[in-house]
Formats: sequence, C-alpha cells, structure tokens
Amino acid sequence: MDRINIAILGASGYTGAELLRLLLVHPCVHVAALAAGKSAGQPVSSVLPHLAGRGLPDMRRMEDIDFGEIDLVFCALPHGTAQEAVAGLPRNVRVVDLSADFRFADIKVYEDWYGKPHMAPELQTEAVYGLPELARGRIRQARIVANPGCYPTPPQLALVPLLRAGAIEPEDIIIDAKSGVSGAGREAKQASLFSEIAEGMQAYGVACHRHSPEIDQGLGIAAGRKIVSGFTPHLVPMNRGIFESIYVKLAKGGDAAAVRRIWRETYAGEPFIQLLPEGHLPSTRQVRGTNVCQMNVLDDRLPGRAIVLCAIDNLVKGAAGQAIQNMNIMFGFEETAGLIQTALFP
Amino acid sequence: MDRINIAILGASGYTGAELLRLLLVHPCVHVAALAAGKSAGQPVSSVLPHLAGRGLPDMRRMEDIDFGEIDLVFCALPHGTAQEAVAGLPRNVRVVDLSADFRFADIKVYEDWYGKPHMAPELQTEAVYGLPELARGRIRQARIVANPGCYPTPPQLALVPLLRAGAIEPEDIIIDAKSGVSGAGREAKQASLFSEIAEGMQAYGVACHRHSPEIDQGLGIAAGRKIVSGFTPHLVPMNRGIFESIYVKLAKGGDAAAVRRIWRETYAGEPFIQLLPEGHLPSTRQVRGTNVCQMNVLDDRLPGRAIVLCAIDNLVKGAAGQAIQNMNIMFGFEETAGLIQTALFP
Amino acid sequence: MDRINIAILGASGYTGAELLRLLLVHPCVHVAALAAGKSAGQPVSSVLPHLAGRGLPDMRRMEDIDFGEIDLVFCALPHGTAQEAVAGLPRNVRVVDLSADFRFADIKVYEDWYGKPHMAPELQTEAVYGLPELARGRIRQARIVANPGCYPTPPQLALVPLLRAGAIEPEDIIIDAKSGVSGAGREAKQASLFSEIAEGMQAYGVACHRHSPEIDQGLGIAAGRKIVSGFTPHLVPMNRGIFESIYVKLAKGGDAAAVRRIWRETYAGEPFIQLLPEGHLPSTRQVRGTNVCQMNVLDDRLPGRAIVLCAIDNLVKGAAGQAIQNMNIMFGFEETAGLIQTALFP
Amino acid sequence: MDRINIAILGASGYTGAELLRLLLVHPCVHVAALAAGKSAGQPVSSVLPHLAGRGLPDMRRMEDIDFGEIDLVFCALPHGTAQEAVAGLPRNVRVVDLSADFRFADIKVYEDWYGKPHMAPELQTEAVYGLPELARGRIRQARIVANPGCYPTPPQLALVPLLRAGAIEPEDIIIDAKSGVSGAGREAKQASLFSEIAEGMQAYGVACHRHSPEIDQGLGIAAGRKIVSGFTPHLVPMNRGIFESIYVKLAKGGDAAAVRRIWRETYAGEPFIQLLPEGHLPSTRQVRGTNVCQMNVLDDRLPGRAIVLCAIDNLVKGAAGQAIQNMNIMFGFEETAGLIQTALFP
Repeated sequence: MDRINIAILGASGYTGAELLRLLLVHPCVHVAALAAGKSAGQPVSSVLPHLAGRGLPDMRRMEDIDFGEIDLVFCALPHGTAQEAVAGLPRNVRVVDLSADFRFADIKVYEDWYGKPHMAPELQTEAVYGLPELARGRIRQARIVANPGCYPTPPQLALVPLLRAGAIEPEDIIIDAKSGVSGAGREAKQASLFSEIAEGMQAYGVACHRHSPEIDQGLGIAAGRKIVSGFTPHLVPMNRGIFESIYVKLAKGGDAAAVRRIWRETYAGEPFIQLLPEGHLPSTRQVRGTNVCQMNVLDDRLPGRAIVLCAIDNLVKGAAGQAIQNMNIMFGFEETAGLIQTALFP
Repeated sequence: MDRINIAILGASGYTGAELLRLLLVHPCVHVAALAAGKSAGQPVSSVLPHLAGRGLPDMRRMEDIDFGEIDLVFCALPHGTAQEAVAGLPRNVRVVDLSADFRFADIKVYEDWYGKPHMAPELQTEAVYGLPELARGRIRQARIVANPGCYPTPPQLALVPLLRAGAIEPEDIIIDAKSGVSGAGREAKQASLFSEIAEGMQAYGVACHRHSPEIDQGLGIAAGRKIVSGFTPHLVPMNRGIFESIYVKLAKGGDAAAVRRIWRETYAGEPFIQLLPEGHLPSTRQVRGTNVCQMNVLDDRLPGRAIVLCAIDNLVKGAAGQAIQNMNIMFGFEETAGLIQTALFP
Repeated sequence: MDRINIAILGASGYTGAELLRLLLVHPCVHVAALAAGKSAGQPVSSVLPHLAGRGLPDMRRMEDIDFGEIDLVFCALPHGTAQEAVAGLPRNVRVVDLSADFRFADIKVYEDWYGKPHMAPELQTEAVYGLPELARGRIRQARIVANPGCYPTPPQLALVPLLRAGAIEPEDIIIDAKSGVSGAGREAKQASLFSEIAEGMQAYGVACHRHSPEIDQGLGIAAGRKIVSGFTPHLVPMNRGIFESIYVKLAKGGDAAAVRRIWRETYAGEPFIQLLPEGHLPSTRQVRGTNVCQMNVLDDRLPGRAIVLCAIDNLVKGAAGQAIQNMNIMFGFEETAGLIQTALFP
Repeated sequence: MDRINIAILGASGYTGAELLRLLLVHPCVHVAALAAGKSAGQPVSSVLPHLAGRGLPDMRRMEDIDFGEIDLVFCALPHGTAQEAVAGLPRNVRVVDLSADFRFADIKVYEDWYGKPHMAPELQTEAVYGLPELARGRIRQARIVANPGCYPTPPQLALVPLLRAGAIEPEDIIIDAKSGVSGAGREAKQASLFSEIAEGMQAYGVACHRHSPEIDQGLGIAAGRKIVSGFTPHLVPMNRGIFESIYVKLAKGGDAAAVRRIWRETYAGEPFIQLLPEGHLPSTRQVRGTNVCQMNVLDDRLPGRAIVLCAIDNLVKGAAGQAIQNMNIMFGFEETAGLIQTALFP
C-alpha cells in the first residue's frame, strides 16, 4: 500500500513529538510536513533533538505548506486556534484535530467554557467526536475528527457502556483524576518548572476544569439525559500518565461483577481496552508509551457503590495514539498499525 | 525547665528518623536511648547517616534500656508488636505509640482488621486517641497516647467539626487519598524500589485499607452513629506528603461558605491548622517538613455536594510531628515547641 | 524467514523485562521459554504485569526447559551464576550472556575482582566479548557472546578508536559515570528504595567498581599495553540512562576536531552510534528506550585535554538492546531488527 | 540582643525563599522589607505560598524601601543587576550580595566572563569574597560581602588548604559537578520544565561555565600562581544538592591520608565542615536543607592521584545559608545562629 502523506500543525510540543515518535514506525504513513509557528525554519534537531537524524522535514510556517499533496493533517495547535487553521485547509485534506475546538456538538457549550466565539461553526456539524471504541463507524466516514481530551477518555470508555445499559445511576458520578505533567504542555510557565512540581502534589481547576463539559457531553448522550458529573483533577510529579478513580452509584441490585460483565461484552476483541482480572489494579506504568486503557472495578464499602479505576498514557491514548488510531480507521489501515508498543518499564 | 529523657523504640525507620530530626531542635527534650532490633549495637552514623555527629546514643536492644531514667517513650514499632512492648514498660513511663495497636476503642475492630489477637487489652482502656486539636484535654492526662494514622488525620480534622455541627451528611463520604512513598516504610520491598515507583502511580488497598476503620471510628463518634466511609488510597512518586480529596454531601441548605465558617470557629488560634483563603488550594509542598494541615473546601458542580481538600506531611502531622505535639501537651510544654519549621521549598 | 526460538534465563528482572519489550516487536524471534528461579510457575502477568496478555509463556525453572528446541539463550542471571548455567546448556544452543561471567579473557582478573573461582574456564576461551561496533566479525562466528557491561560500553566505544589511532594518551584517563537506578537491579534492597534515592545523589564503588577491569581490558587491547583508568560511578535519581564524562589527555597537537574526525571514519554508517554536531551535547533523555550511543567531544580549558561525553540507555545499549544486536549479528538478521525505537520523550 | 532589620532584594526567587525559610527561625533578625520587581505589591502568600501566615511584609519595589531603618541587605538579584542596586544603597547599610557581581577582584575577569562593563568598580575594592571558613577575619569587617557561587564553594573548601600546603599539584585539577535544578532559578524557561528534566540528565556549559573563573581565582590565590582548572557541570533531576567529584594529582609521596590530615587541622571545630570517616561517602540527601559541606577523599587507582568528593545543598551552603553565616560573622552573632537544621530525610 502506498503511504499517505501527513502534516502536523503544532509539531514542536509534547503532542507533536509523540505523534512523530509513533508515526516514525507506522508502515503506511509518510511525514511530509511539520508546522510550528515560533520554530519555523528550524530543523527538528533543534526543536526535538531526540528525533534528529530520522529524516524528518524542517519546521515550517503553516502557510508555507502545500496542502495539495497532503492526505491528512494532525492539528496539535492550542485551543482556540485550531478552528481557523482547519477552516483554512482545502477540502481534500482530512483532519484529526487534537484541540478542544471541535469537540462540542453544542457550540454554546464551547463558547461558555472556552470564553470565545466559535470561528468555524459550519465545520462543527461535520466534525465527529473520535472515541474509536464507541464511534468507529462514524469516524470511518469523517473528514474532521475531534480527538477526545486526555481526562475525558477513560471515564467515557468506562461509563458509557454502563450508562447505556442502565447499570449505574447518572447522578452523583465523582471523578478524581490524577495526571502527569506533560499534560500541561511545553510552554515555559513557572508553575510547570521542575522545582515547582517535583516532590509534591495538589489539586487544580477544581469544579471548573474545561474537560468537565466534555465528560458530561459523552456521558449525557449515553444516558439519554443531561448529566453533571463531579471532576477534580490533580497534578502528580511524573511525566506521563493519567489515573482516574471514579466513584459511582450502582443501579439497584448491581455490583462490580455486573459492571465487569458489561465491559467484557462491549469491549470483546478491542485491542486497546485491557480489562484487568479481579485483584489486579491499573497502573500508569503498565501503559506508559502505549495506546492501552487499563480498567477495573471494585465494590465499594459504601453500600450500593462501586469504584472504577482507569489508567492511560495521557500522550498516547489521551492524545497522539488515539489520533493515530482515528487515522487508521479513517484510511482503512489496521487499527493497531503503529501502535503495538510495549510499555517502557521501568 | 529541665529536659525530659525520652527513648525511641524502632528508631531506624523513617518515622524514627523524623522524630530525631524534630527532637534535635526541641528545647525541652534529651534523647536518652534509641532501640532498633536489627540495628542494635550500631552507631546512628551507620543507620541514619544524615544524623551523624549530633551526639545521639547508639542503637540498642529494647531490653538493654534502663527505663527507670526515661520519662517518655515514642514507640515506632510495627503494628502488632507495640502492644507487648508497651505492656512491658514500667508504669512511670508515659508513651506515645505511633502504631495502630492502641487506636481502636473496640478491641474487636482491631482484631478483625489487623488479623491477630490484641495482646494488651487492659491497656487499651487507658489509651487516649491523640488527635490534639480534638482531644487536647484527655491527652494532657493520658499515660498512653495512640498517635493517629497518617491517612486518618486529615479527614478527621476536616470532617469531625462538620459532623458534630450537622453540616454534612454522614452517608456517602468518599475519601480519595494520595500518599508519598515514605508511608510504605523503610523495609526492603520490591514494590517500594525506586524503579517500581518513579514515573507512575496507582491505587492500592482499595476498599480494604486498614485506615478505613480508624477513619470510621473518628467520624462515627462525631456523628453519634456508625459511619462507613469510602476510602481509596493511591501511591504517588514523591517522598513525603498526603493529599486527600474528600467528597461530601452537604446538609440541606449548606454550602462551602458554611463549612468554612465552622472550621474558623473550631480552629481559631490553632497553630497547626491552616485554613486557606478562597481560591487558594492546599499543596503538599507547602507543608513539607512541617506539622501543618492545610484545608480548603469548594462547592462541587454536583448540586448539594462539596469538595474538601487537605494536605499534610505524612511523616510530620501524619506521624512524628503529631507525636511530639502530643508529648508537648502531656508534659505541659509549649504546644509548638520543636515544631516551628518552615516548609522546605523547593 | 522462520523465527528462531529463544529462551531467557533470569526473565523476572529489569534486563529480562527489557529483552521481552524489545523481542516482542522483533520480526525473526519467537520467545519460547522463560526461566526465573523464585518466580517459577507464575504467569508473566504476576511478575511483569505490563507484559500481560502478550502471549508469553509462564516462568519456569531452568531445568524444566527443553533446550533441544532452543536456538539462542539470553542469560540474564546474576554474576557468578551464569558460568554454571551456560556450561549446562547443550552445544546446539548459542548464548548471549549478559552477566560479567565470560567478559574477561584473563580468568585471573575475573577471579580477583569477583572473588570466586571461574566455574567454566574451558568455555571462556570460546566466548567473544560482544561490543558489536568493534568486534562484528568475531561475534558472527561465536557460540557464546559475553555482552558488555553497561558502564564499560560508552568508554570503549568512545576511546578504543582514539587509542588505536594514538590520538589520546593511555595514561590519566578519568571516567566520571552517572547511572539511573535500574542498573542496581530489581532485588529488594533498602539502598534502592524510592525514599533512599529520590531527591539526592552520591558516588559509590569509588576506585573499586567491578566495571573497572572490564574497561581497562578493552582500552588496553586497543592501546597495545596495560591500562589503568580512573572510574567513579554515581547514582542519579532516574530510572534509566548512563551519562559518562571522560577526561582525556590528547596526543601532542591533538584537539577535539581530530577526535571527531577519527570517530567519523570509524563509525560511518553505524546505525547506533550518533555523533552529535558541534554544540549539541548528549543527554540520556534523547536515547531513552533506544539502542543508541550519543557521543561528542570538546576541548577542555586545561591545555592538551579534551572532554568526551557519552549517553546511553543502560537497559538497552547497556544491556538488552546490545544483546539483541549481538543476536542479530550471530544469526544474520538485519542488525537493527527489533531495535528501531524512537526515544520516549518526555 | 536587639534584632537587626534586614531587607531582601529579589525575594521572590528560590534563593529569596530560602533566605526567608532560614531567617524565620533566626533569633537575632527581623525581616523588615522584601523587594521583588515583578511581584511588587503582592503579599507573600501569592508569591511564596508556603510562607503565608508568617507575618512577612508584602513585596515592594526596591525604591519604596526606607533603607534608613535597614541594617543589612541580602541582595539576591540576577547577575549584572546587583552592582547598580548595591551602589544605590546608603553607606549605613551592610550588604551580602548573592550574585556574581562583586566576586572578582580583577574587574577584567568579571567583564570578560559576564560580557558587560562593571557598574560599580569603586565598590569592588571594598567587597570581601565571603567564604567564611577561609576568610572569617576579613568578613567581620566588611561592609560588602560577595557570597560565593554554589559550584565554587566545595572545590575551594576542599582544595584551598591542600594547595596552601602544597599537598596537590596546581595543574590538572578536574572538577566534575552535578547540580539539582533549583540552581537554574525560578524564571519560566522551557529547559527547566519538569518534563524536560525528570528522568534524564546531561552536561551543560562545558568548558565555558561562568563559575570557572571564580574557582580559578580562589584556587590561584591559595596556590600563589595562576590556575586553570577543568570544570564540567551537569544537571540532575532533583530539586536541591550539588555533588562534586574532583580529580587531583597528589604532590610527590602524598596520599588520601595526608589530605585528610590537612583537612582535619584546617577545619577542626568548624561547625559546617563535615569530614567523613574513611569508607563513608558524601551524599546530597545527608545535607539537604542544611548549611553543611560533607567531604571525603580516596586514593585513585590512577597512581599519584586522589578523588575528592563533596556534597552541599546548593540553596543553603551554596547560597542562602552561607549568606546568613556571613551575616552572623559581620554582626558578631553566633556563627550557627539560624543554621542548626537537621537534614530532611527522606
């Protein structure tokens, strides 16, 4: 099969770097162009020195890319800037957008939470929310896929089948999330300095994080009603990994075993969903560098409640890996192409 | 004032080391004896090299200590071994026990959760559960103080006043706790190796951790009824610090402001309770090396719910510092004596 | 091409795990048997949970493996136990031994530094010291390859060509080495606990580390005379990576440019030697998870001296990756088969 | 004794924070004013939240401080900006300057290495280079003390007595230094982000670091001749700590024992110099948070050479602690006042 030509917009950040790490071993892809505003004109060896010598093109300005030769664009630009960039692409180009810009079916939700007008509302109707395990069919046909946020990926994978099956109550869903620091991006910020992060942890964005409406949208569709969930993110001193502990109320008579049964049915044969056997708990280090989502569930000591535990690598299943999985679906490649890494341990 | 003579049993672990760090600057204490089973006969410089040259006595076997000259013993022995050790002390000696061995008023609870018979039930009646801010009067008179566990300290400090005041519901209390690795102790275990811990995180002891009944005991007394709380501990790649995110149902009409008001009244003048102003979130790095418990509360997006956030240093307010605070109360010293450190940042 | 059958002895440690990570994506290999003394009988999911679900065989005792079906054994046993294990293998089996047991041409050197008699002196004559870039021809024919130590790999790669060319003096070679903690192995030791390692660093094994004679052997052969080098290892709070700073005296008239010229000639076309351009310094994070050795050299402010800097991943080019590279050479596979990873960053 | 009034210029960085941590427990000091350009007008709780509630004054602009009431200024401003600031102070104020601005007796050396003209050459003649153990008498009288750099402190403490005694050769001194990340300061820089630092290490500033001439100045004075030393700094993923491995040529007939003898004579009774017994190696974690410099020396395998090992906390003995030690000497306080911390371990 001929390789498709891809371009990455915003190639100099951590998500861009991770896309490149994965695409360099992808059998069906040729990295044809890299765009990075501030680093335009620089070779990869200056911006991402661990990728030097791998035959990658220099960083360019987006406007210097000839999109006529490009089959797919990965857009890893900051929230609020992707809408205009995607709107500026010719229609022959398919797009996986890793920002939040096309994730909300209801434009008003986007505008309320992101605090700015939507710049491409006509494209929003075309965009498919790309959680592959739950929307494979629609992704296959899509021109624009909105790649899910890192935090929203595990709770949707874990809870959507449960809500659809009525196995948990839609009220009182509490998500306690812990993330590594790469999620904060590569921009120079005091709060992300090593000495501000190492040897300590804290919550942030409590009851106001922008991933809340994205989680609520996914859960709400599954439940067939509006959902407001609790979501509390924390920053943990590690590079990669998201661990989410989700506290749910079971439907009457339900228990962890019933949850596990629904998951097994929903996710049979899924290559990236790892349902752990009883007694084994997820761990971010078991998925580091991989596209896997580990899940398990336990009965809580609180009667009628269960504890759902999930772990992903925020840069892979939470960003670049899922984006490539979406591309694989869009172009009819093996869904696991380029994504068969084993976790880097230790 | 003359200095009192203290002995530490189990001086070679992290809690023992932390007691020594703090006691070395305490104006009213003389460290007269150190016991450490496996390290008996060794100088401090071999076992705790960072304390070399500070005039500390060599490690001994407990049976080689003349307790006639000792005023107070800090017992930092493993759970299950403290009962017999304390039972073997002459009655002139007062005790702060840092294990779980004397924490449970109901001996059956101890025996169920720790899986062994209580070896000193007659002493249990004498023991006072030593959470200073909530039991100062009883501690003053006590001969044996059971120092609270690390995880149970913040939820009791945060929730006991609220339960007493009826400001939160006693059902459906969910505690999501994150701890640094020093809490796992200094014993050589594969699971505590640097390479098994760094760059990753996970939950453990889900719905079965031994600190659950201790939390439930404290909250139950405050509520005047049996409480079962949800408690999920996690291990985070840092040496020190516990961060707990507690999800509670407010009493009808309640809100975060009401919670804050109760705390302010309860803890006015408390030197080690730091109620953060609105908009400031606790962080383990702001309490590292100190005896402070930071607390704040926010209204949840889930209607009728609030999120309580707490941070302590597990080795200080969660162990050695609280033990010294208890000693200060028992002997009539300034309660802050030896405990006026500033956080080590960064 | 048919896949060869390989067995790993000592599969439960970090080196065993890393061999498996790499072999799972190797196109010419089938992992037929795993031996691990203490873990015999257990599935991989218990011992190395990040490798669960990858179709690997359970751990066995070595004596339960049928070596008639095995083409190559990777022996990742501790020093001093590999000699007997390898001696017990049938002669149809080829061996890459990752211990120090077959690294010393002079048995007396082994016995002096490792403090025990050599248990298979007759096999020593057969063993080839397997630094691929410098001994490719001999490796191709070998039945037993002694895989180099982690610390000795970079200084030999950097200095052997220089000593052969007479570009540096054989006296006064000073090697200051820094290693991540995975190099200390997976055994439960207090000194390797997270809390003994994180947030600090120190030297160890100063002027007495067992990698000294291995370095001296390699450099001495290149120089055509006995060499005693200075070697000081340090432990750094990270999982992976070795960084070595080597201080050398240049031959009369020499400079860093001359060194670079010799390297370029020696290593033209080598896939795993990355000679950095002037002004770019090696970094362990640029080689994390890869088989690459990064190198550069700078003129020192001390007249007549140069500073050679090298970085590898101790578990890959310093152990498992190099072992696979040796296997690739022994069996005529592409030398880069299974070794085309991109560094995991961040 | 009445407390003296001190002001800190540049109070919002890591060195400023560390001065405050130490001064808050100093019995003879009152923190009267804090200046921080960008943070002027903000309370300490916003800039250094771990110091909230300790009664510290708000951050101000330097020009808003009434220096008539100030006895001593700690100047923690960036290099190149301290000269003008100090020149602007009234002469009643004594100064400990923590920048490099007054460290060089030869103004030309400053201008060559720092690339700008000296802005207060007339004050340079007045400034005393404040390494307390080696210049106590001159510090006592000084109005302006130039506090030594972090990296230059250990090699001067270790080698100056040896050079004075002729115990080592002044040529071929090789210093391999490893530092924690707080040394890079609190400014938002991509290179200091957690994700650029954690899980990796590298050298930087090789053969061109600005601490080279400072080391050479100190060693040269001791040797009575110009010295050029080799100096290679490395960045290690930890917050605090400097570890230096120094490779020296012994004078004819010398050995490690002779070195140790000279140190013992020179440093008898010094409270902050910890000469370790044979077989004990320095470690940054044993001095974390303290003003101690640990030192030891071993005979090298290279004949006629020795390996000197030193560890300090870069923010204490390498900056704020040493500055306070200098203040103590200048004002006739106990030299250890405010500096009797025990290392924070773990």
